[in-house]
Amino acid sequence: MDLQIDINCDMGESFGNYVMGQDAEILNHVSSANIACGFHAGDPVVMAKTVQLAVQKGVAVGAHPSYPDLQGFGRRKMDMTPDEIEAMVIYQIGALDGFVRANGARLTHVKAHGALYNVAAQDPAVARAYARAVARYNPELAFVCLATGPMIIEEGQKAGLRVVREAFADRAYNADGSLVNRRLAGSMLTDPEKSAEQVIRLVRQGEIVAIDGTVLKLKADTVCIHGDGPTAPAIARALKERLLQESIRISVPVWEGQPA
Amino acid sequence: MDLQIDINCDMGESFGNYVMGQDAEILNHVSSANIACGFHAGDPVVMAKTVQLAVQKGVAVGAHPSYPDLQGFGRRKMDMTPDEIEAMVIYQIGALDGFVRANGARLTHVKAHGALYNVAAQDPAVARAYARAVARYNPELAFVCLATGPMIIEEGQKAGLRVVREAFADRAYNADGSLVNRRLAGSMLTDPEKSAEQVIRLVRQGEIVAIDGTVLKLKADTVCIHGDGPTAPAIARALKERLLQESIRISVPVWEGQPA
Amino acid sequence: MDLQIDINCDMGESFGNYVMGQDAEILNHVSSANIACGFHAGDPVVMAKTVQLAVQKGVAVGAHPSYPDLQGFGRRKMDMTPDEIEAMVIYQIGALDGFVRANGARLTHVKAHGALYNVAAQDPAVARAYARAVARYNPELAFVCLATGPMIIEEGQKAGLRVVREAFADRAYNADGSLVNRRLAGSMLTDPEKSAEQVIRLVRQGEIVAIDGTVLKLKADTVCIHGDGPTAPAIARALKERLLQESIRISVPVWEGQPA
Amino acid sequence: MDLQIDINCDMGESFGNYVMGQDAEILNHVSSANIACGFHAGDPVVMAKTVQLAVQKGVAVGAHPSYPDLQGFGRRKMDMTPDEIEAMVIYQIGALDGFVRANGARLTHVKAHGALYNVAAQDPAVARAYARAVARYNPELAFVCLATGPMIIEEGQKAGLRVVREAFADRAYNADGSLVNRRLAGSMLTDPEKSAEQVIRLVRQGEIVAIDGTVLKLKADTVCIHGDGPTAPAIARALKERLLQESIRISVPVWEGQPA
Repeated sequence: MDLQIDINCDMGESFGNYVMGQDAEILNHVSSANIACGFHAGDPVVMAKTVQLAVQKGVAVGAHPSYPDLQGFGRRKMDMTPDEIEAMVIYQIGALDGFVRANGARLTHVKAHGALYNVAAQDPAVARAYARAVARYNPELAFVCLATGPMIIEEGQKAGLRVVREAFADRAYNADGSLVNRRLAGSMLTDPEKSAEQVIRLVRQGEIVAIDGTVLKLKADTVCIHGDGPTAPAIARALKERLLQESIRISVPVWEGQPA
Repeated sequence: MDLQIDINCDMGESFGNYVMGQDAEILNHVSSANIACGFHAGDPVVMAKTVQLAVQKGVAVGAHPSYPDLQGFGRRKMDMTPDEIEAMVIYQIGALDGFVRANGARLTHVKAHGALYNVAAQDPAVARAYARAVARYNPELAFVCLATGPMIIEEGQKAGLRVVREAFADRAYNADGSLVNRRLAGSMLTDPEKSAEQVIRLVRQGEIVAIDGTVLKLKADTVCIHGDGPTAPAIARALKERLLQESIRISVPVWEGQPA
Repeated sequence: MDLQIDINCDMGESFGNYVMGQDAEILNHVSSANIACGFHAGDPVVMAKTVQLAVQKGVAVGAHPSYPDLQGFGRRKMDMTPDEIEAMVIYQIGALDGFVRANGARLTHVKAHGALYNVAAQDPAVARAYARAVARYNPELAFVCLATGPMIIEEGQKAGLRVVREAFADRAYNADGSLVNRRLAGSMLTDPEKSAEQVIRLVRQGEIVAIDGTVLKLKADTVCIHGDGPTAPAIARALKERLLQESIRISVPVWEGQPA
Repeated sequence: MDLQIDINCDMGESFGNYVMGQDAEILNHVSSANIACGFHAGDPVVMAKTVQLAVQKGVAVGAHPSYPDLQGFGRRKMDMTPDEIEAMVIYQIGALDGFVRANGARLTHVKAHGALYNVAAQDPAVARAYARAVARYNPELAFVCLATGPMIIEEGQKAGLRVVREAFADRAYNADGSLVNRRLAGSMLTDPEKSAEQVIRLVRQGEIVAIDGTVLKLKADTVCIHGDGPTAPAIARALKERLLQESIRISVPVWEGQPA
């Protein structure tokens, strides 16, 4: 039996003179890159370089849209109408896709960033506007959603999108399937071996062990590693090696109905 | 003999609560719209509305990229490297094209705004970076250039783009073919009849009469009317009526080699 | 007995090429100007001009800080920490005060704009951070608060500020003292005579008649007229004339303990 | 004889999640801090923290205004009118001074950043607008200028400001007194000992040795160390130690006519 998982990482989050992340190194170890679109991070030059590098390394390129909040790194919720959400998401996907087209490649997916990712998993009006934006831009795009977020998954499906369920390689889970708050101790898995174990169990058994020991059933198509921690490249490398040892293939999500 | 000219207008230059121009009215009278991309004017919501309206009215939609300068309305030159120019132009074309795609339409052209338009007509490094951005995004896009700017025309042609030569319906010309500075008296033609005469003579005879009476030979594929003056809709309407009276068809530029 | 009221107006809300409001005209009819600080509207040039004009006309100048949201005109709530609120308010007061000092004048008051005004009237943590910012900048500044917002009034007093209670000349009230939502019919008083009546009754009797006829008791030190409606100058002029007829003096708030 | 020099450093150039410089460490070794005002770097939270820290450590606080260009880190020249320059400088000084006042301290100086610093040293109209902004804000502020820029020094003096001549501890000089272009090899002195030697000779003999060995006469009141290089704290510490060994006091500039 052929085991497979997508490894995705948020990238292109430098801005002007400010450097964030070790994108060139991490791109060697992942199958999908979610690239910032200039609203929470990234600028046209950073986007141009990051997309080019991802395309050269054969990594699938997705847009990583956000609230317009560079100072808050897209982590602050903003009250926006559905029309505003829809328009700002189309704008960002289009801008990022500009670089993908300029490199002769094809945009594969969209994954919201920060507060937009979280709000879209909780607020149906935002979820619907966001999903509609993606579907209006291109209904063949994969729509990366919190695997433990049934509402956003449903909105993506209703919009006719290919929903990709996302789990996290370097985040701890609560017993109810939510992520442990970043501000709490133990929320981030910084030990590459622990991250690898979490992913292998997820792929092999469809399970995640929550921070209190509860075993959760979880179906995921992709796992995220964060690119901004100092240990990010180590986690990415260790994860790739361990998955290969376990004969788990790292590749973009396979769609039902697609030939495997 | 079938006479024809394209009438283009800069549009979508409102921003948030700030309204500029009378786009809905002017769209009834032009064949091409150059829509702001959020860098000198426009925001995602304004872009969404303007593109939708233009598509509904059958007006050709182009991107109108600018220096990143909302406060200066893109009229202030900025020192940017060729890489910065190229990336910011791809970003803006992609963003605008996002709305075009979301409306099931096709982007037809690119016309730089304000200081970028002027600098690109004078500085070969900027012209080259700008033309390369357009060609990398989509080499079939029309590239709208100052008809009296031989260098930018040549850079567009070298980049493999369809160059569209632009004259101005509502601006006065100097004897050397340059535009009379906006700050000088008589620089703007505010009388619709005068504008119409300038365009008709340009189409029929390939001539423009400069502010000092000199007759200039000028080949143009499109004429611009500015959308932000109070008389803009009147000029647009008058121009359309007079051209129809003169049996001059208003339509997007026809390419050599294309069937007319 | 000497009757007196302050008339304040939000101003300096143009931005770059975008013109909003008829500040020069309205400044002839009000005693206090709340000038935008560049976060929801205004830019350094607009601020320089507006402050200079207000100082020339002898109108008291206050800062009108906002969430950082030019596209949303400061009307969209943003999740910000108290530290972020405090710092952004100090920044904006300082920036506006720069122009006041450059004109040899003295900043008199602070009034939050849009969503910040509303959130500060409802969320004690935001109210406290906002009041602390003003008090840390200069504890002698007047702190303009919703007259029907007891919590923000209390936070202003606790911070040691001179609290100024604000009512609205051109807005309708609900029976509970809140403002009728802008999106509902009848929310804005566009008839100058009706506005004048509302203010005169407020000054003479300390009462406002709500939209359903309920008579509310209300103590107010200042009344706001909005500067952005087309009838704003007419309302301002009518209000001034009617108040003078009624022998009500228009001047900045008088502090308890101050000589009248 | 009492030898003395001011050591200044650009600071507060982090932005949101992006960290730049090692301000807390460098503040232990300098006498003056030039703090970014949010236009090329810095945001209100960063400004609040940096000013507080500088005040706590007894370091003189100055404003470090820039062109409005976060993406370009203020290093790209923009065409701005004198009125625009003047207004944007007043805005930034006021904003920074807001935090200084909130900390009960006093703003001591202004030093332009990046392209604005360079343009002001070459373009008399910009120099005049910039000096006028500072003088209008507060004529007692020190005005930090390129020691090898006679025009900007003269404009500062004409505006009635206290001109402070600046040399660079970590930059190499050309024989004509200009700085070696950052893009050329040897432009940055990264060896703390070399930096210290350059400063000591400057203080003792009023001389700088240019990159080609030429000895330049130079009068300077302050020397700048850049805060953004990895060796910045080492240079700052070494410089302080060496100057103390040489019995050179590190303190803010002393004005002629002041008691030493």
